[in-house]
Amino acid sequence: MSLLTPLLRSGALTSLFSDEQVVQGMLEFEAALARAQARCGVIPPSAVEPIVTACQFHNIDFPALAAAAANAGNLAIPLVKQLTQKVKTQDADAARYVHWGATSQDAIDTGLVLQLRAALTQTDRDLATLTAILAQQVERYRTTIMPGRTWMQHALPITFGLKLAGTLDALLRWQERLTQLRPRVLVLQLGGAAGTLASLKASGPQVGDALAQTLDLALADTPWHSQRDRLLEVGAWYAGLCGTLAKFANDFSLLMQTEVAEVSEPIAEGRGGSSAMPHKRNPVSCAAILTAAQRTPGLMATLYASQIQQHERALGGWQAEWEVLPELISLAGGVMAQSDYLIRGMQVNTAKMRADLEITHGLIMAEAVTLALAEFIGKADAHHLVEKHCHQAIDRHQSLIKLLQNDPLVSQHLSASTLAQLLDPATALGSSDHFVRQVLARYKEQCHEHSLSN
Amino acid sequence: MSLLTPLLRSGALTSLFSDEQVVQGMLEFEAALARAQARCGVIPPSAVEPIVTACQFHNIDFPALAAAAANAGNLAIPLVKQLTQKVKTQDADAARYVHWGATSQDAIDTGLVLQLRAALTQTDRDLATLTAILAQQVERYRTTIMPGRTWMQHALPITFGLKLAGTLDALLRWQERLTQLRPRVLVLQLGGAAGTLASLKASGPQVGDALAQTLDLALADTPWHSQRDRLLEVGAWYAGLCGTLAKFANDFSLLMQTEVAEVSEPIAEGRGGSSAMPHKRNPVSCAAILTAAQRTPGLMATLYASQIQQHERALGGWQAEWEVLPELISLAGGVMAQSDYLIRGMQVNTAKMRADLEITHGLIMAEAVTLALAEFIGKADAHHLVEKHCHQAIDRHQSLIKLLQNDPLVSQHLSASTLAQLLDPATALGSSDHFVRQVLARYKEQCHEHSLSN
Amino acid sequence: MSLLTPLLRSGALTSLFSDEQVVQGMLEFEAALARAQARCGVIPPSAVEPIVTACQFHNIDFPALAAAAANAGNLAIPLVKQLTQKVKTQDADAARYVHWGATSQDAIDTGLVLQLRAALTQTDRDLATLTAILAQQVERYRTTIMPGRTWMQHALPITFGLKLAGTLDALLRWQERLTQLRPRVLVLQLGGAAGTLASLKASGPQVGDALAQTLDLALADTPWHSQRDRLLEVGAWYAGLCGTLAKFANDFSLLMQTEVAEVSEPIAEGRGGSSAMPHKRNPVSCAAILTAAQRTPGLMATLYASQIQQHERALGGWQAEWEVLPELISLAGGVMAQSDYLIRGMQVNTAKMRADLEITHGLIMAEAVTLALAEFIGKADAHHLVEKHCHQAIDRHQSLIKLLQNDPLVSQHLSASTLAQLLDPATALGSSDHFVRQVLARYKEQCHEHSLSN
Amino acid sequence: MSLLTPLLRSGALTSLFSDEQVVQGMLEFEAALARAQARCGVIPPSAVEPIVTACQFHNIDFPALAAAAANAGNLAIPLVKQLTQKVKTQDADAARYVHWGATSQDAIDTGLVLQLRAALTQTDRDLATLTAILAQQVERYRTTIMPGRTWMQHALPITFGLKLAGTLDALLRWQERLTQLRPRVLVLQLGGAAGTLASLKASGPQVGDALAQTLDLALADTPWHSQRDRLLEVGAWYAGLCGTLAKFANDFSLLMQTEVAEVSEPIAEGRGGSSAMPHKRNPVSCAAILTAAQRTPGLMATLYASQIQQHERALGGWQAEWEVLPELISLAGGVMAQSDYLIRGMQVNTAKMRADLEITHGLIMAEAVTLALAEFIGKADAHHLVEKHCHQAIDRHQSLIKLLQNDPLVSQHLSASTLAQLLDPATALGSSDHFVRQVLARYKEQCHEHSLSN
Repeated sequence: MSLLTPLLRSGALTSLFSDEQVVQGMLEFEAALARAQARCGVIPPSAVEPIVTACQFHNIDFPALAAAAANAGNLAIPLVKQLTQKVKTQDADAARYVHWGATSQDAIDTGLVLQLRAALTQTDRDLATLTAILAQQVERYRTTIMPGRTWMQHALPITFGLKLAGTLDALLRWQERLTQLRPRVLVLQLGGAAGTLASLKASGPQVGDALAQTLDLALADTPWHSQRDRLLEVGAWYAGLCGTLAKFANDFSLLMQTEVAEVSEPIAEGRGGSSAMPHKRNPVSCAAILTAAQRTPGLMATLYASQIQQHERALGGWQAEWEVLPELISLAGGVMAQSDYLIRGMQVNTAKMRADLEITHGLIMAEAVTLALAEFIGKADAHHLVEKHCHQAIDRHQSLIKLLQNDPLVSQHLSASTLAQLLDPATALGSSDHFVRQVLARYKEQCHEHSLSN
Repeated sequence: MSLLTPLLRSGALTSLFSDEQVVQGMLEFEAALARAQARCGVIPPSAVEPIVTACQFHNIDFPALAAAAANAGNLAIPLVKQLTQKVKTQDADAARYVHWGATSQDAIDTGLVLQLRAALTQTDRDLATLTAILAQQVERYRTTIMPGRTWMQHALPITFGLKLAGTLDALLRWQERLTQLRPRVLVLQLGGAAGTLASLKASGPQVGDALAQTLDLALADTPWHSQRDRLLEVGAWYAGLCGTLAKFANDFSLLMQTEVAEVSEPIAEGRGGSSAMPHKRNPVSCAAILTAAQRTPGLMATLYASQIQQHERALGGWQAEWEVLPELISLAGGVMAQSDYLIRGMQVNTAKMRADLEITHGLIMAEAVTLALAEFIGKADAHHLVEKHCHQAIDRHQSLIKLLQNDPLVSQHLSASTLAQLLDPATALGSSDHFVRQVLARYKEQCHEHSLSN
Repeated sequence: MSLLTPLLRSGALTSLFSDEQVVQGMLEFEAALARAQARCGVIPPSAVEPIVTACQFHNIDFPALAAAAANAGNLAIPLVKQLTQKVKTQDADAARYVHWGATSQDAIDTGLVLQLRAALTQTDRDLATLTAILAQQVERYRTTIMPGRTWMQHALPITFGLKLAGTLDALLRWQERLTQLRPRVLVLQLGGAAGTLASLKASGPQVGDALAQTLDLALADTPWHSQRDRLLEVGAWYAGLCGTLAKFANDFSLLMQTEVAEVSEPIAEGRGGSSAMPHKRNPVSCAAILTAAQRTPGLMATLYASQIQQHERALGGWQAEWEVLPELISLAGGVMAQSDYLIRGMQVNTAKMRADLEITHGLIMAEAVTLALAEFIGKADAHHLVEKHCHQAIDRHQSLIKLLQNDPLVSQHLSASTLAQLLDPATALGSSDHFVRQVLARYKEQCHEHSLSN
Repeated sequence: MSLLTPLLRSGALTSLFSDEQVVQGMLEFEAALARAQARCGVIPPSAVEPIVTACQFHNIDFPALAAAAANAGNLAIPLVKQLTQKVKTQDADAARYVHWGATSQDAIDTGLVLQLRAALTQTDRDLATLTAILAQQVERYRTTIMPGRTWMQHALPITFGLKLAGTLDALLRWQERLTQLRPRVLVLQLGGAAGTLASLKASGPQVGDALAQTLDLALADTPWHSQRDRLLEVGAWYAGLCGTLAKFANDFSLLMQTEVAEVSEPIAEGRGGSSAMPHKRNPVSCAAILTAAQRTPGLMATLYASQIQQHERALGGWQAEWEVLPELISLAGGVMAQSDYLIRGMQVNTAKMRADLEITHGLIMAEAVTLALAEFIGKADAHHLVEKHCHQAIDRHQSLIKLLQNDPLVSQHLSASTLAQLLDPATALGSSDHFVRQVLARYKEQCHEHSLSN
């Protein structure tokens, strides 16, 4: 439903998988095939120019293509027919050599790999930008104290920088994985009708080499018409990235709840309003990210199930990839674009973060008191004692510090001033800054490697 | 990717979920709302005509709508704005009453329900047709004998009619379920901003009644903005139907394998060819069905996950339904259309079915011999003895009947002529015809009920 | 991993799917088969007693059974062998008639149906209890006012009763669906090796009748060895129910966040503590429910994919059901048990609910002001004007009421006292109570029907 | 349901995820923590011995642990309590320092990582064995000719070696991926209650270092309590591997169909029989593999959805991993074990493979004729002409070679002897052997690298 594309698939990746680009990918395969085969003496040199010239998507009648695909079972068969006709109008002899020795899936798969190459390149760039702006925010909020939350409840104080660093850390791993998978998946598909290249007789390997060079793709050891782990890996990467960014968006939406209000999305005219409620500023970017991420598990389930492809070319599993993988990547592109907007422009209410540390009147610091007390009476007993006071504090709405001060066993070991210090959130950040610095150092290192490799 | 729609979503359901119909569904809500509210004295009668007149999708600027939805977070907010502007050009006073007291989700959900009603009605019709043509084929192949296959191996003889009756039987259950769910899911959504209809003050119930009547929808006991089991149920029905039809298509494609060749898809010029192999007649309809069915489990996983919608309106779960449910239904429409084509026109090679019963030289009848022998020596011993001969027949490529005749224990109880009779597949159809007749009787009964209720 | 069963599968359903019950289900099939076949004169009457007596799970060597199943491919084959041996020790002649004419899947499927019957009966009871305690809570909190929340932000006031009624309403629909599906799914499986009952020759229908009566199951029109929509339907019902209850648990956990604290789980010694933080009372029941519900979409994806079963008995799809369906139902049982505990004992802080309405200093009532103003200046203009004031109130931390009072256009139409009244949450509950009463009325009606039918 | 474990989870991985190993993993964390903290001066050296000694799973009361976990919400809390009690019985002072400064999730996650390390090591070994036996089979069947099949129909001749090489090629990629992910995922978890290690004050980093060394794990840059991409990556690897092996098993089961019978599973007494049909040798290993693989997409859907973990510790997503990841890995272990059995012992009927090439009377060689003819009349015209003859051959059961010989346009360009040669499958293997040799070369290279790194 294209009306929702600007909301859900706003990234640059969507256009790479348009109908036009699908067709253009296959046409680039056909053009390069003619070039490579002429180079290898498989087709006459004179056939190249007419074929290559015709390989432009605007030469294609798309509605006719779609209609014919319903009979043919795939897009390449009618596309090759249209292309052959087009070439024929210019050069009947050249038309004989269109798609020479190749099979539909060679064109479809290689076309897809060309689209994936563009997508991975764009994604690599977008991810570099995303980590850069996130690293800036980590730096900026490195010492901003706020409640850490576990099981949806206040736990201990953390810094907002540490929270952001967790996401940055995960993104750096996705970057590393991307670097590793890229050479593995960007490979030519050329196997002919049953993966033997029988149609090219002895010239198969030579044409394969030449075609891979022409398209600047790696050469697979063997055709992979029904071995789809490379495509699965690409999908899994995008789905995983969506998971990391959706975790961030979900946390963001939790922090943005009316009662919490520690952050808010960038404020823009007309953004996040309601048709009924004038006070609304809904988290639209979070919603878009979470909506897209709601779909990735299901899309991945299909890609996993689609690994079971029959024999040398599948009936169902292969065809299911055609829409699922582009949909997954387009949604991931939207997730990245919305995350960029969100991370770049987020409003952070550091005062509210600080204030929220106080709302439990000291409970958030209960572990610190316990540990101090444990030095004297052991961990288990300390835990038990402080727990008792905490529960009373909650149930009777009393201040934890008062309850502790009034407990003789506590005051025997911890003076009032020690207690006060123990209950100061700012003293309890532990290794937060150490962790943040480690993540930032990794970021810089990876940044450096990345710039060298580009 | 619309190029694949004619292949994968060829049914009549796809057009019911086009962008135009999405918008029209919401506009019908707005038009009916104005009518109902005027009837209840909530808005002036003079406002109705200008609002209703404007509620046509061709009044809407779709690109502007899509762009604005990216900011608003849903389609209804910018749609109501465009609609209000349009009404204003005709009647500024009427424009004040557009979308009066309603919330975006009221328009979106009710619009969707109107689309679903059209879809269920169409589906009910298509399913009636499908069961009718299938019932004819069941009747036609009632006594056509063929190998039954379990674990992908020959088991015992069955009839092709019995095989088809299994699918018909399941379709009749889907028909029954459809009848049961229809009244439960075709309900109005009207709750206002938080599901309280606060905006309509005391008139809420009255307006709800009038609106439900105007749209000929049932009235829910309470708004269901974040209780989505009805939509889940619709999706689950379509996904289940796809499962039944995909089981049929998968069996069909197995029966159509070159070595089996007991059936083939309808033969049509240009259908199922290959760009490389001139002899190919690929099972295109089976492929289309299996491709669509490959996606339904993943789409359903999303719908199930989307049941967890937060508070009075969700962030992610609701929005995920927008594309997933229509996609699922459109794919199911394609599955039904391809199944209709396949079942109606299938080529059945009854001679090959008969011949395949012979290829194991009697093994397929081993159970019959066992049971006859069991009368004399008990089931376990008989099983063990015949099993031994079967394995020898397979491993040494010998005829089972000869091995049995040469076994003194067998020949002691079963004469050569008895053995020959036991090994005749036609004598071994058991209750096949009884089952077929029961399913056909149920079909007729349900057909009758269906015609009464329409 | 059984260590987690008390946390995740605490309901009564888990024990119904133990190894023992799986075996007992199949043995009950075998016992009833012997009875029915003796009644029909298919086996000698004297065989019944020895077979029936042996059909107790404690007669079975479970480790041997499991080991043998790895070779056989299913549990029924080695079970029948053990059973035959057992009977043989008592009565060699009777042993000949064990499992007469049936196939493994007849025993496995009918055994499963018997387990499902027990599960549905238990579930029906549990659901009746759950709706009863929830209906009480709806009644109790019918007028308790709290913030309604959409997109994770304050929207308008609602009642807690209305919120609870939404869940009750959905549960009543699940109850209705359960009533509809029960007769459809509780059917005998009896088809013999390829679904023709060839082994029973002419006695097939008669034995089928007698066996169905013996087991008090309905008789299917035809065997359903590879038509699995009934089991899918059962799974889908449980998964859907989990969705409804997980929506409730998720809302509950959101309301229980430290800053919101409008509800809390029942307080019990040692429940929801932390190994580090003595102040913790984690929402353990919510966690258990959400954990289970996290799995149901994936389990359902498998059940949907498993509909594609080959020919007369499947290779993979059928076998996948064996663990997936019981796992799904056991998890659902845990979800129901935890929901019962949660709903029954939940702590509700009505004062905090009331207080939270005030934290935005009037913003939550912005729609009411807009609608009052709209009567004078139209909806769009009123919305725009109030929106401007709301945003200023948020961005500059000002009181909405003051901003409105100071706006000449507002004060021209709305007096200070009118404004004050408009901003009182208690006046803005619209049809909340009407909706609640409708749901409670439906509950009573359905309760009545339910008691009649039991 | 443990009765099915020998069938579905027969690999060595299952025992690594038993209840005992889950507990032992956590205890090893606790033991190592004591050691590391003593080394850093955080706890007294005298506490080490009593704690370490107690950290044996047989000290734990498992039923009590499971019961307590239902209240606590996880296993670590009651485990630490039991452990503390146990230590206390030996040394009350040491008991004070059990689990010092750590949080439940530190123990649970690190324990899991230790289990994963054992699993990855075992898997690495199993995969090396699997590729070795498969490489032998590739070599063995390198020139065995058989029909290639696309869309479940005969396409062109291939070699069985090429078919097997496709799977080997994919397994080599999984091996490469495993090498890449191992260092990324085998990391320590140590963050304390909210991921700040506040409890350890300034000693956090030092203790982290020491603990990582003690356990021989890498040190993460920051705690990853709610960043779960590493675990996702492990799950995705196993699910992907299952996909590759299930593709093989599915092909195998198709080749094993009664009519095809080109291969069969290893023959073993009592394997793959039927309770009703003595002739049955069902493909039990294929069934087990396909059954397990039927579940992996759904399990992965859960792992993807579980990436969205709230704040510093999740409510639902984390807990869902506890059973899903072990279940996935155990099933994958079963898939590997069954694949080993299947690949090692498969029966190959090379005569039937050869014979199946002939059953279409030349159609399988239609592409070769087309390409020869295309040299004279162009590819499109040649395709059209041969296609016409093929369809006639199929529809009228005629021999393709005769039809071609009788066509004047064909015989003008291709002599009878040329035609006969073109229709010989053995001449049409194209680059099959080249591809096979490339895959085998890669296998040897990777084997060499693998042996160096071990």
